[in-house]
Amino acid sequence: MDLLHNPRELQAHADRLRAAGHRIALVPTMGALHPGHLALIAAARRHAECVVVSIFVNPTQFNAAADLAAYPRCLEADLAVCREAGVDVVFAPQENDLYGPGSQTIVEVTELQKPLCGATRPGHFRGVASVVTRLLIAAKPHVAVFGEKDFQQLALVRRLVRDLGFDVEVVGVPTVREPDGLALSSRNVHLTPRRRQQARVLVESLRAAEAAVCAGECRRDALLALAEREVDKAPDARIDYVELRDPESLAPAPAQLVGPTLLALAVHFPRRGDAGETVRLIDNRVLPVGQMQEEAP
Amino acid sequence: MDLLHNPRELQAHADRLRAAGHRIALVPTMGALHPGHLALIAAARRHAECVVVSIFVNPTQFNAAADLAAYPRCLEADLAVCREAGVDVVFAPQENDLYGPGSQTIVEVTELQKPLCGATRPGHFRGVASVVTRLLIAAKPHVAVFGEKDFQQLALVRRLVRDLGFDVEVVGVPTVREPDGLALSSRNVHLTPRRRQQARVLVESLRAAEAAVCAGECRRDALLALAEREVDKAPDARIDYVELRDPESLAPAPAQLVGPTLLALAVHFPRRGDAGETVRLIDNRVLPVGQMQEEAP
Repeated sequence: MDLLHNPRELQAHADRLRAAGHRIALVPTMGALHPGHLALIAAARRHAECVVVSIFVNPTQFNAAADLAAYPRCLEADLAVCREAGVDVVFAPQENDLYGPGSQTIVEVTELQKPLCGATRPGHFRGVASVVTRLLIAAKPHVAVFGEKDFQQLALVRRLVRDLGFDVEVVGVPTVREPDGLALSSRNVHLTPRRRQQARVLVESLRAAEAAVCAGECRRDALLALAEREVDKAPDARIDYVELRDPESLAPAPAQLVGPTLLALAVHFPRRGDAGETVRLIDNRVLPVGQMQEEAP
Repeated sequence: MDLLHNPRELQAHADRLRAAGHRIALVPTMGALHPGHLALIAAARRHAECVVVSIFVNPTQFNAAADLAAYPRCLEADLAVCREAGVDVVFAPQENDLYGPGSQTIVEVTELQKPLCGATRPGHFRGVASVVTRLLIAAKPHVAVFGEKDFQQLALVRRLVRDLGFDVEVVGVPTVREPDGLALSSRNVHLTPRRRQQARVLVESLRAAEAAVCAGECRRDALLALAEREVDKAPDARIDYVELRDPESLAPAPAQLVGPTLLALAVHFPRRGDAGETVRLIDNRVLPVGQMQEEAP
Protein backbone atom coordinates (compact mmCIF):
# COMPACT_ATOMS: atom_id res chain seq x y z
CA MET A 1 0.00 0.00 0.00
CA ASP A 2 1.34 3.44 -0.95
CA LEU A 3 0.97 6.40 1.40
CA LEU A 4 1.06 9.74 -0.44
CA HIS A 5 0.75 13.23 0.98
CA ASN A 6 1.30 15.50 -2.00
CA PRO A 7 -1.33 16.06 -4.72
CA ARG A 8 1.42 16.16 -7.38
CA GLU A 9 2.62 12.69 -6.40
CA LEU A 10 -0.94 11.40 -6.56
CA GLN A 11 -1.46 12.93 -10.02
CA ALA A 12 1.77 11.38 -11.29
CA HIS A 13 0.65 8.02 -9.87
CA ALA A 14 -2.75 8.40 -11.57
CA ASP A 15 -1.13 9.32 -14.88
CA ARG A 16 0.97 6.14 -14.78
CA LEU A 17 -2.06 3.97 -13.94
CA ARG A 18 -4.15 5.58 -16.67
CA ALA A 19 -1.37 5.20 -19.25
CA ALA A 20 -1.31 1.48 -18.36
CA GLY A 21 -5.06 1.24 -18.90
CA HIS A 22 -6.00 0.78 -15.24
CA ARG A 23 -9.10 2.20 -13.61
CA ILE A 24 -8.95 4.29 -10.43
CA ALA A 25 -11.66 4.54 -7.74
CA LEU A 26 -11.51 7.27 -5.11
CA VAL A 27 -13.07 6.96 -1.64
CA PRO A 28 -12.94 10.38 0.06
CA THR A 29 -13.02 10.14 3.87
CA MET A 30 -12.22 12.21 6.93
CA GLY A 31 -10.64 9.15 8.58
CA ALA A 32 -11.91 7.53 11.80
CA LEU A 33 -12.71 4.62 9.54
CA HIS A 34 -15.52 2.25 10.54
CA PRO A 35 -17.41 -0.55 8.75
CA GLY A 36 -19.38 2.06 6.80
CA HIS A 37 -16.15 3.09 5.13
CA LEU A 38 -15.28 -0.57 4.49
CA ALA A 39 -18.48 -0.83 2.45
CA LEU A 40 -17.32 2.16 0.39
CA ILE A 41 -13.92 0.54 -0.14
CA ALA A 42 -15.55 -2.75 -1.17
CA ALA A 43 -17.73 -0.89 -3.70
CA ALA A 44 -14.67 0.92 -5.03
CA ARG A 45 -12.91 -2.41 -5.50
CA ARG A 46 -15.78 -3.66 -7.68
CA HIS A 47 -15.24 -0.68 -10.03
CA ALA A 48 -11.47 -0.35 -10.38
CA GLU A 49 -8.08 -2.01 -10.21
CA CYS A 50 -6.69 0.77 -8.04
CA VAL A 51 -8.53 1.93 -4.91
CA VAL A 52 -7.44 5.29 -3.48
CA VAL A 53 -8.70 6.28 -0.02
CA SER A 54 -8.20 9.92 0.90
CA ILE A 55 -8.03 10.79 4.60
CA PHE A 56 -8.38 14.50 5.24
CA VAL A 57 -10.31 16.29 7.99
CA ASN A 58 -11.38 19.17 5.79
CA PRO A 59 -11.38 22.37 7.84
CA THR A 60 -13.52 24.35 5.38
CA GLN A 61 -16.59 22.16 5.93
CA PHE A 62 -16.72 22.68 9.69
CA ASN A 63 -18.83 25.50 11.07
CA ALA A 64 -17.47 25.46 14.60
CA ALA A 65 -13.82 25.39 15.58
CA ALA A 66 -14.77 23.15 18.52
CA ASP A 67 -16.34 20.58 16.20
CA LEU A 68 -13.22 20.57 14.01
CA ALA A 69 -10.94 20.23 17.04
CA ALA A 70 -13.06 17.39 18.48
CA TYR A 71 -13.19 15.41 15.24
CA PRO A 72 -11.42 12.09 15.83
CA ARG A 73 -7.98 11.74 14.22
CA CYS A 74 -6.26 8.35 14.23
CA LEU A 75 -4.13 8.01 11.08
CA GLU A 76 -2.17 4.96 12.24
CA ALA A 77 -5.32 2.99 13.01
CA ASP A 78 -6.88 4.14 9.72
CA LEU A 79 -3.81 3.01 7.78
CA ALA A 80 -4.08 -0.43 9.39
CA VAL A 81 -7.75 -0.61 8.40
CA CYS A 82 -6.89 0.34 4.82
CA ARG A 83 -4.04 -2.15 4.60
CA GLU A 84 -6.30 -4.90 5.89
CA ALA A 85 -8.99 -3.91 3.37
CA GLY A 86 -6.57 -4.15 0.44
CA VAL A 87 -6.51 -0.44 -0.37
CA ASP A 88 -3.84 0.42 -2.94
CA VAL A 89 -3.14 4.05 -2.11
CA VAL A 90 -3.88 6.20 0.93
CA PHE A 91 -3.77 9.92 0.18
CA ALA A 92 -3.33 11.83 3.43
CA PRO A 93 -2.53 15.47 2.60
CA GLN A 94 -1.75 18.17 5.12
CA GLU A 95 -4.04 21.21 5.15
CA ASN A 96 -1.34 23.16 3.33
CA ASP A 97 -1.32 20.62 0.46
CA LEU A 98 -4.97 21.37 -0.43
CA TYR A 99 -5.24 24.95 0.84
CA GLY A 100 -1.87 26.58 0.27
CA PRO A 101 -0.89 30.12 1.26
CA GLY A 102 -3.29 32.65 -0.22
CA SER A 103 -5.75 29.93 -1.27
CA GLN A 104 -9.07 31.60 -2.13
CA THR A 105 -10.78 29.49 -4.79
CA ILE A 106 -14.14 28.11 -3.73
CA VAL A 107 -16.72 25.92 -5.43
CA GLU A 108 -20.44 26.17 -4.73
CA VAL A 109 -23.43 24.12 -5.83
CA THR A 110 -25.67 27.07 -5.32
CA GLU A 111 -29.11 25.51 -4.91
CA LEU A 112 -28.45 22.03 -3.51
CA GLN A 113 -26.29 23.52 -0.76
CA LYS A 114 -29.15 25.55 0.74
CA PRO A 115 -31.74 23.28 2.38
CA LEU A 116 -31.55 20.52 5.03
CA CYS A 117 -28.09 20.42 6.60
CA GLY A 118 -27.14 23.54 4.64
CA ALA A 119 -29.74 25.60 6.48
CA THR A 120 -28.08 25.23 9.87
CA ARG A 121 -24.49 24.74 8.72
CA PRO A 122 -23.67 27.82 6.62
CA GLY A 123 -20.61 27.25 4.44
CA HIS A 124 -20.55 23.50 5.11
CA PHE A 125 -21.37 22.43 1.57
CA ARG A 126 -19.15 25.11 0.06
CA GLY A 127 -16.37 23.40 2.00
CA VAL A 128 -17.48 19.98 0.76
CA ALA A 129 -17.67 21.11 -2.88
CA SER A 130 -14.32 22.90 -2.64
CA VAL A 131 -12.50 19.89 -1.21
CA VAL A 132 -14.18 17.28 -3.43
CA THR A 133 -13.17 19.29 -6.51
CA ARG A 134 -9.57 19.39 -5.27
CA LEU A 135 -9.62 15.63 -4.53
CA LEU A 136 -11.04 14.76 -7.97
CA ILE A 137 -8.36 16.87 -9.65
CA ALA A 138 -5.64 15.27 -7.52
CA ALA A 139 -6.70 11.62 -7.81
CA LYS A 140 -8.02 11.66 -11.43
CA PRO A 141 -10.39 8.80 -10.65
CA HIS A 142 -12.76 7.00 -13.01
CA VAL A 143 -15.14 6.40 -10.10
CA ALA A 144 -15.78 8.25 -6.84
CA VAL A 145 -17.62 6.51 -4.02
CA PHE A 146 -19.80 8.22 -1.39
CA GLY A 147 -22.17 6.92 1.28
CA GLU A 148 -25.93 7.41 1.00
CA LYS A 149 -26.05 8.33 4.68
CA ASP A 150 -24.86 11.81 3.73
CA PHE A 151 -27.60 11.99 1.13
CA GLN A 152 -27.42 15.73 0.47
CA GLN A 153 -23.65 15.51 0.05
CA LEU A 154 -24.10 12.68 -2.46
CA ALA A 155 -26.73 14.63 -4.42
CA LEU A 156 -24.49 17.71 -4.39
CA VAL A 157 -21.42 15.78 -5.56
CA ARG A 158 -23.44 14.20 -8.40
CA ARG A 159 -24.53 17.67 -9.47
CA LEU A 160 -21.01 19.12 -9.18
CA VAL A 161 -19.51 16.31 -11.25
CA ARG A 162 -22.18 16.74 -13.93
CA ASP A 163 -21.96 20.55 -13.96
CA LEU A 164 -18.17 20.83 -14.12
CA GLY A 165 -18.01 17.91 -16.56
CA PHE A 166 -15.67 15.59 -14.67
CA ASP A 167 -15.47 12.23 -16.46
CA VAL A 168 -16.08 10.49 -13.15
CA GLU A 169 -18.85 8.06 -12.26
CA VAL A 170 -20.29 8.84 -8.83
CA VAL A 171 -21.31 5.69 -6.96
CA GLY A 172 -23.59 5.85 -3.92
CA VAL A 173 -23.36 3.08 -1.32
CA PRO A 174 -26.24 2.12 1.03
CA THR A 175 -25.85 3.10 4.66
CA VAL A 176 -24.27 0.53 6.99
CA ARG A 177 -26.15 0.13 10.26
CA GLU A 178 -25.74 -1.26 13.77
CA PRO A 179 -27.83 -4.36 14.56
CA ASP A 180 -30.59 -2.12 15.94
CA GLY A 181 -30.62 -0.01 12.79
CA LEU A 182 -28.63 3.07 13.90
CA ALA A 183 -26.58 4.38 10.98
CA LEU A 184 -22.83 4.09 11.57
CA SER A 185 -21.17 7.43 12.19
CA SER A 186 -17.93 8.54 13.74
CA ARG A 187 -20.07 10.83 15.91
CA ASN A 188 -21.95 7.96 17.59
CA VAL A 189 -19.11 7.54 20.13
CA HIS A 190 -20.12 10.88 21.66
CA LEU A 191 -23.44 9.41 22.92
CA THR A 192 -23.91 8.03 26.42
CA PRO A 193 -25.31 4.46 26.48
CA ARG A 194 -28.75 5.84 27.36
CA ARG A 195 -28.76 8.29 24.40
CA ARG A 196 -27.27 5.61 22.17
CA GLN A 197 -30.41 3.56 22.94
CA GLN A 198 -32.65 6.55 22.23
CA ALA A 199 -30.91 7.23 18.93
CA ARG A 200 -32.79 4.26 17.46
CA VAL A 201 -35.71 6.64 16.92
CA LEU A 202 -34.11 7.97 13.72
CA VAL A 203 -34.28 4.67 11.88
CA GLU A 204 -37.61 3.82 13.50
CA SER A 205 -39.03 7.07 12.19
CA LEU A 206 -37.85 6.20 8.67
CA ARG A 207 -39.29 2.69 8.95
CA ALA A 208 -42.64 3.95 10.20
CA ALA A 209 -42.89 6.42 7.32
CA GLU A 210 -41.97 3.76 4.80
CA ALA A 211 -44.57 1.39 6.24
CA ALA A 212 -47.19 4.12 5.99
CA VAL A 213 -46.27 4.79 2.36
CA CYS A 214 -46.48 1.09 1.58
CA ALA A 215 -49.93 1.12 3.17
CA GLY A 216 -50.98 3.87 0.75
CA GLU A 217 -50.27 7.09 2.67
CA CYS A 218 -49.04 9.81 0.34
CA ARG A 219 -50.03 13.01 2.14
CA ARG A 220 -46.90 14.99 2.93
CA ASP A 221 -48.07 16.52 6.20
CA ALA A 222 -49.40 13.23 7.56
CA LEU A 223 -46.05 11.56 6.86
CA LEU A 224 -44.07 14.40 8.42
CA ALA A 225 -46.26 14.29 11.54
CA LEU A 226 -45.79 10.54 11.76
CA ALA A 227 -42.02 10.80 11.37
CA GLU A 228 -41.76 13.57 13.97
CA ARG A 229 -43.89 11.61 16.44
CA GLU A 230 -41.49 8.69 16.19
CA VAL A 231 -38.45 10.89 16.82
CA ASP A 232 -40.18 12.54 19.78
CA LYS A 233 -40.43 9.16 21.52
CA ALA A 234 -36.80 9.74 22.55
CA PRO A 235 -37.01 12.02 25.59
CA ASP A 236 -33.61 13.67 24.89
CA ALA A 237 -34.03 14.15 21.15
CA ARG A 238 -34.29 17.66 19.72
CA ILE A 239 -35.28 17.78 16.07
CA ASP A 240 -33.16 19.92 13.74
CA TYR A 241 -35.25 19.01 10.72
CA VAL A 242 -37.66 16.37 9.43
CA GLU A 243 -38.27 17.00 5.75
CA LEU A 244 -39.66 15.46 2.58
CA ARG A 245 -37.89 16.49 -0.62
CA ASP A 246 -37.23 15.50 -4.20
CA PRO A 247 -34.31 13.02 -4.15
CA GLU A 248 -32.46 14.73 -7.02
CA SER A 249 -33.26 18.44 -6.90
CA LEU A 250 -33.98 18.48 -3.13
CA ALA A 251 -36.99 20.68 -3.93
CA PRO A 252 -39.70 20.60 -1.23
CA ALA A 253 -42.23 17.82 -1.73
CA PRO A 254 -45.76 18.73 -2.84
CA ALA A 255 -48.72 18.25 -0.47
CA GLN A 256 -49.58 15.01 -2.26
CA LEU A 257 -46.48 12.95 -2.97
CA VAL A 258 -46.37 11.53 -6.48
CA GLY A 259 -43.09 9.61 -6.77
CA PRO A 260 -40.04 8.48 -4.81
CA THR A 261 -39.46 11.08 -2.08
CA LEU A 262 -36.54 11.65 0.25
CA LEU A 263 -37.35 11.63 3.96
CA ALA A 264 -34.40 13.25 5.72
CA LEU A 265 -33.86 13.68 9.45
CA ALA A 266 -31.37 15.54 11.62
CA VAL A 267 -31.67 15.18 15.38
CA HIS A 268 -29.63 16.56 18.24
CA PHE A 269 -28.83 14.58 21.39
CA PRO A 270 -26.90 15.89 24.39
CA ARG A 271 -23.21 15.15 24.04
CA ARG A 272 -21.48 12.84 26.49
CA GLY A 273 -19.82 14.81 29.27
CA ASP A 274 -20.19 18.18 27.56
CA ALA A 275 -22.80 20.38 29.14
CA GLY A 276 -24.73 22.21 26.46
CA GLU A 277 -22.95 20.65 23.47
CA THR A 278 -24.89 18.22 21.31
CA VAL A 279 -24.30 15.37 18.88
CA ARG A 280 -26.18 15.87 15.64
CA LEU A 281 -27.21 12.62 13.96
CA ILE A 282 -28.65 12.37 10.46
CA ASP A 283 -30.38 9.63 8.54
CA ASN A 284 -32.59 9.35 5.47
CA ARG A 285 -34.57 7.05 3.26
CA VAL A 286 -36.09 7.42 -0.18
CA LEU A 287 -39.75 6.51 0.34
CA PRO A 288 -41.15 4.35 -2.47
CA VAL A 289 -44.15 6.58 -3.16
CA GLY A 290 -46.17 5.41 -6.14
CA GLN A 291 -44.04 2.34 -6.63
CA MET A 292 -45.99 -0.30 -4.73
CA GLN A 293 -49.14 0.49 -6.66
CA GLU A 294 -47.33 0.17 -9.98
CA GLU A 295 -45.62 -3.07 -9.10
CA ALA A 296 -48.76 -4.73 -7.71
CA PRO A 297 -51.56 -4.18 -10.23
CA MET B 1 -8.17 19.69 -37.91
CA ASP B 2 -10.84 18.14 -35.72
CA LEU B 3 -13.96 20.08 -34.77
CA LEU B 4 -15.53 18.82 -31.54
CA HIS B 5 -18.62 20.09 -29.75
CA ASN B 6 -19.07 17.71 -26.85
CA PRO B 7 -16.88 17.76 -23.71
CA ARG B 8 -16.98 13.95 -23.55
CA GLU B 9 -15.52 13.67 -27.05
CA LEU B 10 -12.78 16.12 -26.11
CA GLN B 11 -11.95 14.15 -22.95
CA ALA B 12 -11.75 10.91 -24.91
CA HIS B 13 -9.47 12.62 -27.42
CA ALA B 14 -7.28 13.95 -24.59
CA ASP B 15 -7.10 10.49 -22.97
CA ARG B 16 -5.86 9.00 -26.24
CA LEU B 17 -3.23 11.71 -26.70
CA ARG B 18 -2.05 11.39 -23.10
CA ALA B 19 -1.85 7.60 -23.34
CA ALA B 20 0.38 8.08 -26.39
CA GLY B 21 2.62 10.44 -24.43
CA HIS B 22 1.64 13.62 -26.27
CA ARG B 23 1.30 17.03 -24.65
CA ILE B 24 -1.84 19.14 -25.01
CA ALA B 25 -2.04 22.96 -24.96
CA LEU B 26 -5.39 24.71 -24.57
CA VAL B 27 -6.10 28.21 -25.89
CA PRO B 28 -9.48 29.37 -24.51
CA THR B 29 -11.13 32.03 -26.69
CA MET B 30 -14.52 33.59 -27.32
CA GLY B 31 -13.89 33.51 -31.08
CA ALA B 32 -13.65 36.61 -33.29
CA LEU B 33 -10.03 35.57 -33.68
CA HIS B 34 -7.45 38.26 -34.47
CA PRO B 35 -3.62 38.33 -34.51
CA GLY B 36 -3.62 38.50 -30.71
CA HIS B 37 -5.11 35.01 -30.68
CA LEU B 38 -2.56 33.87 -33.26
CA ALA B 39 0.18 34.81 -30.79
CA LEU B 40 -1.55 32.60 -28.19
CA ILE B 41 -1.76 29.74 -30.68
CA ALA B 42 1.92 30.14 -31.58
CA ALA B 43 2.87 30.03 -27.89
CA ALA B 44 0.72 26.92 -27.42
CA ARG B 45 2.52 25.25 -30.30
CA ARG B 46 5.87 25.82 -28.59
CA HIS B 47 4.60 23.88 -25.55
CA ALA B 48 2.71 20.91 -26.96
CA GLU B 49 2.21 18.52 -29.86
CA CYS B 50 -1.56 19.06 -29.81
CA VAL B 51 -3.04 22.57 -29.80
CA VAL B 52 -6.71 22.82 -28.80
CA VAL B 53 -8.51 26.13 -29.36
CA SER B 54 -11.85 26.49 -27.59
CA ILE B 55 -14.37 28.91 -29.08
CA PHE B 56 -17.21 29.69 -26.71
CA VAL B 57 -18.93 33.01 -26.03
CA ASN B 58 -19.43 32.35 -22.33
CA PRO B 59 -22.76 33.83 -21.24
CA THR B 60 -21.96 33.75 -17.51
CA GLN B 61 -19.16 36.29 -17.80
CA PHE B 62 -21.29 38.99 -19.43
CA ASN B 63 -23.00 41.54 -17.21
CA ALA B 64 -25.33 42.97 -19.79
CA ALA B 65 -27.54 40.98 -22.15
CA ALA B 66 -26.90 43.65 -24.81
CA ASP B 67 -23.12 43.13 -24.55
CA LEU B 68 -23.57 39.36 -24.90
CA ALA B 69 -25.88 39.77 -27.88
CA ALA B 70 -23.52 42.25 -29.56
CA TYR B 71 -20.43 40.09 -29.11
CA PRO B 72 -19.18 39.13 -32.58
CA ARG B 73 -19.79 35.51 -33.62
CA CYS B 74 -18.16 34.19 -36.76
CA LEU B 75 -17.39 30.47 -36.37
CA GLU B 76 -16.71 29.79 -40.06
CA ALA B 77 -14.11 32.56 -40.28
CA ASP B 78 -12.60 31.46 -36.96
CA LEU B 79 -12.30 27.87 -38.19
CA ALA B 80 -10.47 29.10 -41.27
CA VAL B 81 -8.07 31.09 -39.09
CA CYS B 82 -7.43 28.01 -36.91
CA ARG B 83 -6.89 25.75 -39.91
CA GLU B 84 -4.43 28.23 -41.38
CA ALA B 85 -2.61 28.46 -38.02
CA GLY B 86 -2.17 24.69 -37.82
CA VAL B 87 -4.52 24.16 -34.86
CA ASP B 88 -5.17 20.46 -34.18
CA VAL B 89 -8.55 20.61 -32.48
CA VAL B 90 -11.24 23.28 -32.28
CA PHE B 91 -13.63 22.77 -29.38
CA ALA B 92 -16.83 24.71 -30.04
CA PRO B 93 -19.45 23.66 -27.48
CA GLN B 94 -23.03 24.87 -27.36
CA GLU B 95 -24.15 26.61 -24.17
CA ASN B 96 -25.97 23.45 -23.17
CA ASP B 97 -22.74 21.43 -23.38
CA LEU B 98 -21.09 23.46 -20.60
CA TYR B 99 -24.16 24.62 -18.70
CA GLY B 100 -26.70 21.82 -18.91
CA PRO B 101 -30.24 21.86 -17.50
CA GLY B 102 -30.18 22.65 -13.78
CA SER B 103 -26.51 23.64 -13.88
CA GLN B 104 -25.69 25.51 -10.67
CA THR B 105 -22.03 24.88 -9.84
CA ILE B 106 -19.93 28.02 -9.71
CA VAL B 107 -16.26 28.67 -9.05
CA GLU B 108 -14.99 31.87 -7.45
CA VAL B 109 -11.52 33.24 -6.80
CA THR B 110 -12.84 35.28 -3.95
CA GLU B 111 -10.23 38.03 -3.56
CA LEU B 112 -8.71 38.42 -7.02
CA GLN B 113 -12.18 38.77 -8.54
CA LYS B 114 -13.02 41.92 -6.56
CA PRO B 115 -10.92 44.90 -7.73
CA LEU B 116 -10.30 46.52 -11.14
CA CYS B 117 -12.67 45.06 -13.74
CA GLY B 118 -14.44 43.10 -11.00
CA ALA B 119 -15.58 46.30 -9.31
CA THR B 120 -17.76 47.42 -12.20
CA ARG B 121 -18.56 43.99 -13.68
CA PRO B 122 -20.18 42.02 -10.84
CA GLY B 123 -20.16 38.31 -11.53
CA HIS B 124 -17.82 38.64 -14.51
CA PHE B 125 -14.90 36.79 -12.94
CA ARG B 126 -17.18 34.19 -11.36
CA GLY B 127 -18.23 33.46 -14.94
CA VAL B 128 -14.60 33.35 -16.09
CA ALA B 129 -13.55 31.01 -13.25
CA SER B 130 -16.58 28.79 -13.79
CA VAL B 131 -15.98 28.38 -17.52
CA VAL B 132 -12.19 28.01 -17.30
CA THR B 133 -12.64 25.22 -14.74
CA ARG B 134 -15.04 23.44 -17.11
CA LEU B 135 -12.66 23.91 -20.06
CA LEU B 136 -9.65 22.57 -18.12
CA ILE B 137 -11.66 19.52 -17.06
CA ALA B 138 -12.85 18.96 -20.65
CA ALA B 139 -9.54 19.45 -22.47
CA LYS B 140 -7.17 17.94 -19.84
CA PRO B 141 -4.33 20.12 -21.09
CA HIS B 142 -0.74 20.19 -19.88
CA VAL B 143 -0.56 23.90 -20.72
CA ALA B 144 -3.20 26.64 -20.88
CA VAL B 145 -2.42 29.89 -22.70
CA PHE B 146 -3.89 33.31 -21.87
CA GLY B 147 -3.10 36.83 -23.04
CA GLU B 148 -1.52 39.38 -20.73
CA LYS B 149 -3.93 42.02 -22.01
CA ASP B 150 -6.57 40.56 -19.68
CA PHE B 151 -4.10 40.80 -16.83
CA GLN B 152 -6.58 40.29 -14.00
CA GLN B 153 -8.03 37.24 -15.76
CA LEU B 154 -4.53 35.79 -16.13
CA ALA B 155 -3.72 36.39 -12.44
CA LEU B 156 -7.05 34.86 -11.45
CA VAL B 157 -6.56 31.78 -13.63
CA ARG B 158 -3.05 31.27 -12.22
CA ARG B 159 -4.53 31.41 -8.71
CA LEU B 160 -7.42 29.07 -9.61
CA VAL B 161 -5.08 26.49 -11.14
CA ARG B 162 -2.79 26.61 -8.11
CA ASP B 163 -5.66 26.50 -5.57
CA LEU B 164 -7.62 23.66 -7.15
CA GLY B 165 -4.38 21.81 -7.92
CA PHE B 166 -4.75 21.35 -11.67
CA ASP B 167 -1.53 19.90 -13.10
CA VAL B 168 -1.60 22.57 -15.80
CA GLU B 169 1.07 25.15 -16.59
CA VAL B 170 -0.48 28.57 -17.20
CA VAL B 171 1.39 30.53 -19.88
CA GLY B 172 0.90 34.28 -20.27
CA VAL B 173 1.52 35.85 -23.71
CA PRO B 174 2.46 39.52 -24.23
CA THR B 175 -0.22 41.75 -25.69
CA VAL B 176 -0.25 42.14 -29.47
CA ARG B 177 -0.66 45.74 -30.62
CA GLU B 178 -1.58 47.81 -33.64
CA PRO B 179 1.28 49.83 -35.20
CA ASP B 180 0.32 52.84 -33.06
CA GLY B 181 0.35 50.71 -29.89
CA LEU B 182 -3.39 50.13 -29.35
CA ALA B 183 -3.89 46.65 -27.87
CA LEU B 184 -5.78 44.32 -30.21
CA SER B 185 -9.33 43.62 -29.06
CA SER B 186 -12.45 42.33 -30.72
CA ARG B 187 -14.14 45.43 -29.27
CA ASN B 188 -11.98 47.90 -31.23
CA VAL B 189 -14.29 47.55 -34.27
CA HIS B 190 -16.97 49.40 -32.33
CA LEU B 191 -14.92 52.65 -32.39
CA THR B 192 -15.43 55.38 -35.00
CA PRO B 193 -12.19 56.36 -36.79
CA ARG B 194 -11.95 59.49 -34.64
CA ARG B 195 -12.28 57.53 -31.37
CA ARG B 196 -9.95 54.88 -32.74
CA GLN B 197 -7.34 57.64 -33.01
CA GLN B 198 -8.08 58.85 -29.49
CA ALA B 199 -7.78 55.31 -28.10
CA ARG B 200 -4.00 55.61 -28.43
CA VAL B 201 -4.06 57.43 -25.09
CA LEU B 202 -4.21 54.11 -23.22
CA VAL B 203 -0.84 52.88 -24.40
CA GLU B 204 0.59 56.40 -24.23
CA SER B 205 -0.45 56.60 -20.60
CA LEU B 206 1.34 53.30 -19.88
CA ARG B 207 4.46 54.48 -21.75
CA ALA B 208 4.54 57.79 -19.90
CA ALA B 209 4.28 56.06 -16.53
CA GLU B 210 7.00 53.60 -17.46
CA ALA B 211 9.27 56.43 -18.61
CA ALA B 212 8.67 58.22 -15.30
CA VAL B 213 9.52 55.08 -13.33
CA CYS B 214 12.68 54.63 -15.38
CA ALA B 215 13.57 58.23 -14.52
CA GLY B 216 13.26 57.40 -10.83
CA GLU B 217 9.64 58.27 -9.98
CA CYS B 218 8.18 55.82 -7.45
CA ARG B 219 5.47 57.86 -5.74
CA ARG B 220 2.13 56.14 -6.32
CA ASP B 221 0.00 59.26 -6.46
CA ALA B 222 2.33 61.10 -8.81
CA LEU B 223 2.30 58.14 -11.22
CA LEU B 224 -1.50 57.83 -11.06
CA ALA B 225 -1.90 61.55 -11.75
CA LEU B 226 0.49 61.30 -14.68
CA ALA B 227 -1.32 58.27 -16.13
CA GLU B 228 -4.74 59.94 -15.76
CA ARG B 229 -3.50 63.14 -17.39
CA GLU B 230 -2.40 61.16 -20.44
CA VAL B 231 -5.78 59.44 -20.77
CA ASP B 232 -7.60 62.74 -20.37
CA LYS B 233 -5.88 64.03 -23.50
CA ALA B 234 -8.56 62.13 -25.44
CA PRO B 235 -11.63 64.42 -25.42
CA ASP B 236 -14.11 61.50 -25.57
CA ALA B 237 -12.41 59.25 -23.01
CA ARG B 238 -14.14 58.54 -19.68
CA ILE B 239 -11.94 56.75 -17.15
CA ASP B 240 -13.38 53.65 -15.46
CA TYR B 241 -10.22 53.08 -13.43
CA VAL B 242 -6.51 53.89 -13.40
CA GLU B 243 -4.86 51.83 -10.67
CA LEU B 244 -1.52 50.64 -9.36
CA ARG B 245 -1.54 47.17 -7.78
CA ASP B 246 0.63 44.21 -6.86
CA PRO B 247 0.98 42.08 -10.01
CA GLU B 248 0.25 38.79 -8.20
CA SER B 249 -2.13 39.53 -5.30
CA LEU B 250 -3.65 42.64 -6.96
CA ALA B 251 -3.40 44.33 -3.55
CA PRO B 252 -3.37 48.17 -3.74
CA ALA B 253 0.13 49.60 -4.16
CA PRO B 254 1.70 51.44 -1.22
CA ALA B 255 2.32 55.19 -1.38
CA GLN B 256 5.97 54.53 -2.22
CA LEU B 257 6.30 51.75 -4.78
CA VAL B 258 9.02 49.24 -3.91
CA GLY B 259 8.97 46.60 -6.66
CA PRO B 260 7.36 45.71 -9.98
CA THR B 261 3.86 47.21 -9.95
CA LEU B 262 0.89 46.71 -12.24
CA LEU B 263 -0.52 49.83 -13.86
CA ALA B 264 -3.99 48.92 -15.12
CA LEU B 265 -6.40 51.08 -17.11
CA ALA B 266 -10.01 50.81 -18.20
CA VAL B 267 -11.45 53.59 -20.34
CA HIS B 268 -14.84 54.10 -21.93
CA PHE B 269 -15.34 55.62 -25.38
CA PRO B 270 -18.70 56.32 -27.04
CA ARG B 271 -19.76 53.39 -29.15
CA ARG B 272 -20.11 53.77 -32.92
CA GLY B 273 -23.70 54.53 -33.86
CA ASP B 274 -25.13 53.70 -30.46
CA ALA B 275 -26.27 56.74 -28.50
CA GLY B 276 -25.32 56.32 -24.87
CA GLU B 277 -23.60 52.93 -25.22
CA THR B 278 -19.84 52.80 -24.78
CA VAL B 279 -16.87 50.65 -25.71
CA ARG B 280 -14.72 49.81 -22.69
CA LEU B 281 -11.04 49.32 -23.50
CA ILE B 282 -8.45 47.94 -21.08
CA ASP B 283 -4.68 47.86 -21.10
CA ASN B 284 -1.92 47.35 -18.56
CA ARG B 285 1.82 47.24 -17.98
CA VAL B 286 3.97 45.98 -15.13
CA LEU B 287 6.13 48.99 -14.25
CA PRO B 288 9.75 48.04 -13.55
CA VAL B 289 9.92 49.80 -10.19
CA GLY B 290 13.23 49.20 -8.42
CA GLN B 291 14.66 47.30 -11.36
CA MET B 292 16.50 49.98 -13.28
CA GLN B 293 18.45 51.03 -10.19
CA GLU B 294 19.53 47.44 -9.57
CA GLU B 295 20.54 46.78 -13.14
CA ALA B 296 22.50 50.03 -13.56
CA PRO B 297 24.67 50.48 -10.49
